Amino acid sequence: MEKIVNLAKRRGFAFQSSEIYGGLASCWDYGPIGVELKRNVKEAWWRDMVTRRADIVGIDCSILMHPRVWEASGHVAGFTDPLVDCKLCKERFRADKLMDAQCPRKPSKHPGECEGELTEARQFNLMFKTFMGPVEDTASVVFLRPETAQGIFVNFLNVLHTSRQKIPFGIAQIGKSFRNEITPGNFLFRTREFEQMEMEFFVRPGEDERWYEYWREERLNWYTRYGIRRENLRLREHAPEELAHYAKACVDVEYHFPFGWSELEGIANRTDFDLRRHAEYSGKDLSYYDEETKERFYPYVIEPAAGADRATLAFLVDAYDEDVADGEPRVVLRFHPRIAPVKVAVFPLLRKEGHPERALEIVDILRQHFTVQYDQSGSIGRRYRRQDEIGTPFGVTVDHQTLQDNTVTLRDRDTMRQERISVERLVEELKRRIEI
Amino acid sequence: MEKIVNLAKRRGFAFQSSEIYGGLASCWDYGPIGVELKRNVKEAWWRDMVTRRADIVGIDCSILMHPRVWEASGHVAGFTDPLVDCKLCKERFRADKLMDAQCPRKPSKHPGECEGELTEARQFNLMFKTFMGPVEDTASVVFLRPETAQGIFVNFLNVLHTSRQKIPFGIAQIGKSFRNEITPGNFLFRTREFEQMEMEFFVRPGEDERWYEYWREERLNWYTRYGIRRENLRLREHAPEELAHYAKACVDVEYHFPFGWSELEGIANRTDFDLRRHAEYSGKDLSYYDEETKERFYPYVIEPAAGADRATLAFLVDAYDEDVADGEPRVVLRFHPRIAPVKVAVFPLLRKEGHPERALEIVDILRQHFTVQYDQSGSIGRRYRRQDEIGTPFGVTVDHQTLQDNTVTLRDRDTMRQERISVERLVEELKRRIEI
Repeated sequence: MEKIVNLAKRRGFAFQSSEIYGGLASCWDYGPIGVELKRNVKEAWWRDMVTRRADIVGIDCSILMHPRVWEASGHVAGFTDPLVDCKLCKERFRADKLMDAQCPRKPSKHPGECEGELTEARQFNLMFKTFMGPVEDTASVVFLRPETAQGIFVNFLNVLHTSRQKIPFGIAQIGKSFRNEITPGNFLFRTREFEQMEMEFFVRPGEDERWYEYWREERLNWYTRYGIRRENLRLREHAPEELAHYAKACVDVEYHFPFGWSELEGIANRTDFDLRRHAEYSGKDLSYYDEETKERFYPYVIEPAAGADRATLAFLVDAYDEDVADGEPRVVLRFHPRIAPVKVAVFPLLRKEGHPERALEIVDILRQHFTVQYDQSGSIGRRYRRQDEIGTPFGVTVDHQTLQDNTVTLRDRDTMRQERISVERLVEELKRRIEI
Repeated sequence: MEKIVNLAKRRGFAFQSSEIYGGLASCWDYGPIGVELKRNVKEAWWRDMVTRRADIVGIDCSILMHPRVWEASGHVAGFTDPLVDCKLCKERFRADKLMDAQCPRKPSKHPGECEGELTEARQFNLMFKTFMGPVEDTASVVFLRPETAQGIFVNFLNVLHTSRQKIPFGIAQIGKSFRNEITPGNFLFRTREFEQMEMEFFVRPGEDERWYEYWREERLNWYTRYGIRRENLRLREHAPEELAHYAKACVDVEYHFPFGWSELEGIANRTDFDLRRHAEYSGKDLSYYDEETKERFYPYVIEPAAGADRATLAFLVDAYDEDVADGEPRVVLRFHPRIAPVKVAVFPLLRKEGHPERALEIVDILRQHFTVQYDQSGSIGRRYRRQDEIGTPFGVTVDHQTLQDNTVTLRDRDTMRQERISVERLVEELKRRIEI
């Protein structure tokens, strides 16, 4: 993991937020390469979950929502962690995770095993709160959403009335959420500000179990489709006592991170809990009328809820590889071409008259379609290594022959094979190889 | 404007946030059509500002940043509005906008002209604050960023060291910002939560005026490139007394909204103010070393800062048109094909044997590349009207002849001309027409 964090920082994947001020705990900024990687992950999700499906539409809700939303959802009352204070050192710990914590005075001991006495556990709400409007009183308290899902539920009728969708159908959303975690950590994995990719799929009660099975498989396959190795993924079904109050069943897609198997995405059968609660709290009828069967009912909801940052980290970790190229050790990120932050790099070979100019012309052509890097400094081997390290799948070298017959060499990151191809065919060929 | 707000709500462009709970003032949710529109606007910006440029890279910073960032930037001390309270009705107003406000008791009068007496003006900070970590004390106060720009400045060195860029170069970012505006309004125009598209372009001092001129023109042209009419845009140079404390010059790109000329984007010459301030407050040397001239200096910054929601609203307003089609009045949104939320709609003509099946096959092909709608209900004229109203540039009808020779008719939204085209050529032809 340390190798990956170092690479991420050194090559511009991610930096600690506000680093020049000592950093802000658990908040990260995506650098020039990281932002492209994360954009590609989100774009792949949106394409497969919205654009390519007839039965799912998108939405984009505000982060600030009416406080009643969180009363109805159960977050105001129940979205809490139990906390204890040490009476000696005044530090605060999660009562249910004491064995994961260190005593600040005696790091070899856990809190409570040292001289300090712990208080009784108190419930601490994980929602960030803020104040909207010019008066700082309780009437204007609003929360930063802890999940994007509720924005979908409160818009169920709006979408139903404007999209002409019929059950079964889904509503998808990508956006930031915030949770005041007591113990964030593991780089991009658990952060207080994070981005979710959530979809709520509304189905007829009784058909929920079938759709739950469907989405389990579909979502697991999504990760392998973009190159994550199957052996690093597993489905972990929640035991009945683990289930959230609203869930009939839940399964985690877990990835084998260097710090252990951890959740990438949860697929839950949320039943009709959310729509019924919002109907109750808002006084609006949120039921669904089925024109075919002439029945009115509250749909059940199957929710695949993924973390965009966790997925980005998993793609990065899974792509990491070390091998030997041209007799020298190299670090290579074996990103799927769709996910790779930079698609193609262009290198003028030998810095001779005419090569950089022609190479720059080719860059200009490619830049209309792809994220491109141009590199003319150092040996060609070193330039390949730089691109391998950020996972650029294709390299184009412009050489003497280019000026004669308008061909370039096209190198594949993984096979390291090169072939000559005419500049006219380059864009088309790259599109073909990327859009697999 | 009312027509546009109604259309937006009726067709799924935008809904009021938490509408079933009475709404949350000035917060909006993008519906199934709106989310695609806004995504296209942001994508067009990113493509032109990052992907297609050799001299700009992207970044994506967290919304929560270290509180010292906002001391350095001047926001803690200076990002305020003057407020007065009415001693009689206890309402709060902006002292500098009293003439825009109504007395709640006597709506015909402005506050202060009625029986109520106003307090002295006090400064109210527009940043939303929240509390990070489990203890709610001043040590853990953090702010929701009021602009994305500062995330770029504090990462200046990180980007410089990882991207191999040399001055002049830019760093671009798209993301949410928050301002606790006293008087939000005009639909998506002024909201407390909003999304920015900002780019900071770092240049050599002395070359700043030339680059300022460059970005003025470049950014104005960006809006016309995607179809906004030139006569609805203007540049408004700020008078010296209007300039922010950090700015040497500033110009607004204004759009002629139904509620008047209003700012879409500001292009500012921020000088070296931000980098110098962050160097001072962080104790880090943020200067730039020019290897060619062997000089060390603080770069000047030219900042084109656009609002994604405002741009989306401008594209929507500018696209709105009413005309007569086939002898009937129609509402049509004349979106540029790149900006249009739905690219193509497919209609089986006459609900006869084989047409819906073949039409659905064609939808499946198109959906791999474009956002597509399928509509088989009602007369063909009515189906065209539905698509015209959300600005779908192309319509494909599948008819009897399709089953015979595998051709469809392709209709253009604006000319309403139709031509027959083979299904094999359809994707390629649509791409050609969209990517203009």
